[in-house]
Amino acid sequence: MKPLSATEAVKAIEAGTLTSETLVQACLDRIAERDPVVKAWVHLDPTLALVQARAADQAEGGLLRGVPIGVKDIIDTYDMPTGHNSPIFAGTQPFGDAACVALSRAANGVILGKTVTTEFANRHPGPTTNPHNAAHTPGGSSSGSAAAVADGHVPLAFGTQTGGSVIRPAAYCGVIGYKPTFGDFSRVGIKMQCHSVDTLGLMARTLDDIALFRGAVLALPPAPVERDVSAPRIGFCRTPIWDESEADTKDLLEKTARKLGAKDVAFAPAFEDILDDHGAITGWESMRNYADERLRNPGKVSAELMAIMKKSDGITLDRYVAAQRRTVAFKAFIDSLFDDFDVLICPSAPGEAPKGREFTGDPRFNSIWTLAGTPCVTLPIGTGDMGLPLGVQLVGLRHADDKLLSTAHWVLCHA
Amino acid sequence: MKPLSATEAVKAIEAGTLTSETLVQACLDRIAERDPVVKAWVHLDPTLALVQARAADQAEGGLLRGVPIGVKDIIDTYDMPTGHNSPIFAGTQPFGDAACVALSRAANGVILGKTVTTEFANRHPGPTTNPHNAAHTPGGSSSGSAAAVADGHVPLAFGTQTGGSVIRPAAYCGVIGYKPTFGDFSRVGIKMQCHSVDTLGLMARTLDDIALFRGAVLALPPAPVERDVSAPRIGFCRTPIWDESEADTKDLLEKTARKLGAKDVAFAPAFEDILDDHGAITGWESMRNYADERLRNPGKVSAELMAIMKKSDGITLDRYVAAQRRTVAFKAFIDSLFDDFDVLICPSAPGEAPKGREFTGDPRFNSIWTLAGTPCVTLPIGTGDMGLPLGVQLVGLRHADDKLLSTAHWVLCHA
Repeated sequence: MKPLSATEAVKAIEAGTLTSETLVQACLDRIAERDPVVKAWVHLDPTLALVQARAADQAEGGLLRGVPIGVKDIIDTYDMPTGHNSPIFAGTQPFGDAACVALSRAANGVILGKTVTTEFANRHPGPTTNPHNAAHTPGGSSSGSAAAVADGHVPLAFGTQTGGSVIRPAAYCGVIGYKPTFGDFSRVGIKMQCHSVDTLGLMARTLDDIALFRGAVLALPPAPVERDVSAPRIGFCRTPIWDESEADTKDLLEKTARKLGAKDVAFAPAFEDILDDHGAITGWESMRNYADERLRNPGKVSAELMAIMKKSDGITLDRYVAAQRRTVAFKAFIDSLFDDFDVLICPSAPGEAPKGREFTGDPRFNSIWTLAGTPCVTLPIGTGDMGLPLGVQLVGLRHADDKLLSTAHWVLCHA
Repeated sequence: MKPLSATEAVKAIEAGTLTSETLVQACLDRIAERDPVVKAWVHLDPTLALVQARAADQAEGGLLRGVPIGVKDIIDTYDMPTGHNSPIFAGTQPFGDAACVALSRAANGVILGKTVTTEFANRHPGPTTNPHNAAHTPGGSSSGSAAAVADGHVPLAFGTQTGGSVIRPAAYCGVIGYKPTFGDFSRVGIKMQCHSVDTLGLMARTLDDIALFRGAVLALPPAPVERDVSAPRIGFCRTPIWDESEADTKDLLEKTARKLGAKDVAFAPAFEDILDDHGAITGWESMRNYADERLRNPGKVSAELMAIMKKSDGITLDRYVAAQRRTVAFKAFIDSLFDDFDVLICPSAPGEAPKGREFTGDPRFNSIWTLAGTPCVTLPIGTGDMGLPLGVQLVGLRHADDKLLSTAHWVLCHA
């Protein structure tokens, strides 16, 4: 049986044809069956989940009434440990909920458990496998959230993105990933990597679920995805790294762009190397943001992250400032593209999920937009040469997230 | 005896004519004598402070070698409680150090203790009094840090600013307050109020100490304030709320502007009501950022903060987005002023510290610049009608903090 979407589940619970307890138990059963292979969860307490489910069944209303949610394990929960996939935090339990968790609970959602992250949402991987083929990475850093949603463990999950940590794993696992406009979602209680770009994101299997979940996290009134939209003006933005994408990805994008009547959008030559600025900003900031970990517990930081930080130590303040100043201009350039287009399309990743678990994939098709602060959605509308999912990434104007989601629905219907 | 500046203390410790232990003991003695009236400290463990001091005496180098630092009590310390002036957090001890604390320790600074904050760095006051007159507020929200530095308890202290929480209390207490360019200082481990504006800031009694402290927090090589500067182009920006400042403040600013050869700078009519946008952004964000506190512990949040959040609940996403978009334009406008000027001057506050402790003062002369993300410094160069300190606020171009500090030194010499 196809697992219910969150929107369907809320409707059934409201109608009295389903209880949260039944739904949560079904999710727990699915996890018990599949997680020995998928390894999406780092903390799961079935008793606590069912207690929450019964409370949700008793409660009235709430956008997420009774729906189970996976929470990336760099996001604080007052009643579960938060481990950051680091021995430094092994077994520690935060004092409070992250704002996004508190707001989900206030919307009557059930916090099912914590999903595997790479170490501090950086590069050092966790044990999660791609549910479509366990020999491949699920992507990172929101590995467990993407795999759990894709494999029907849970209809909704939180991820976070500094480079490509929401959109890429969602694309690799064949689900919908959504990174909102920078600044709209609260980051309170989420481990900070790079404050200029870190963004909380959402994963689900339908766009309606993304809209529902977004409404809960923003404490907004219910607002389903608008269906009544005219054909959008779509820009096909190959980005400066187009040539580094794989043939199946190029084919999917070219074919989709043609089908949607997209027009080519040139990337301004002045910003061809904008990814260097993303690197300078994230390197400079993460070195300082991880000060407590690397200074008090250097022996418990992975060799991978220590090497990244050592490299970042060479970034000067002048270089950081130059990157910040160029980012201001870059954001203005990207904003200006939306004078002529409603949405841009580009690859969600260079190709399918790479084989192996050590390398979680190349985030650069996402880092461009994380730096720009634009809202992004990846739609699972293709299959690659190895039979794994391929995504198409849609990029919207900053703060026009509603429009991005309705345009994404139009694209899903017409691609 | 005039208390040593941090710069003087480091020099003496390096020269072997002073030990950190002696310095820290002198600070503890001063606190023991004065804090029953000033009430700047919420947590102080003399034994732990002296252990750190002896370790600093043993260690080599470090920008802050042996210098004691006051830490606002919304900033995490792994070895001391962090109470946020809220019963919710009473007695809780964070897992790790805030990045700024870890970086200060790495520079061989001594974390002396935690200074009083208003509740969550919002409006509900703590017990601190103004060291110049205990019947007056020290300002807020960084009340204890400003009072402790002013009263010679400690040469350096951390504050944070969402509206005017660094510059205003520094001005009220007669010390130098510095708010860096938004984004330069890590906020990891600092309680978030409003992510679009919250900024870590520094307090000291000399500009060299600000530069020294800044270097430590940014993990930069030593760089004292540049002395060899030619006369800067100074703009006198009265701001849209000039008429609400008091006569003594107006007089001080007019006199200082004349003396420095400042030219008038008009505030663009389009941004006359920019403070409304600051209010929309901070209201919308704080409602969501405080989700855990207001949802899990509503009975332990002050009536004052609950009322502010209730009011903020009426701010729509559309209003928030409009404010964010206007802020982008506002930042561009403020940046453009620096084509013609090196620095702007304006009041640090509408007047002297108000009488009483309940009202920590009007932050609006600061909120304008917090929203703009510009670096700001307040210099204690005046005295008001009640005999309390008055500050002059200098505002620099984003990311030109070095230049702001050297210009501030020029202003101190010529005002």
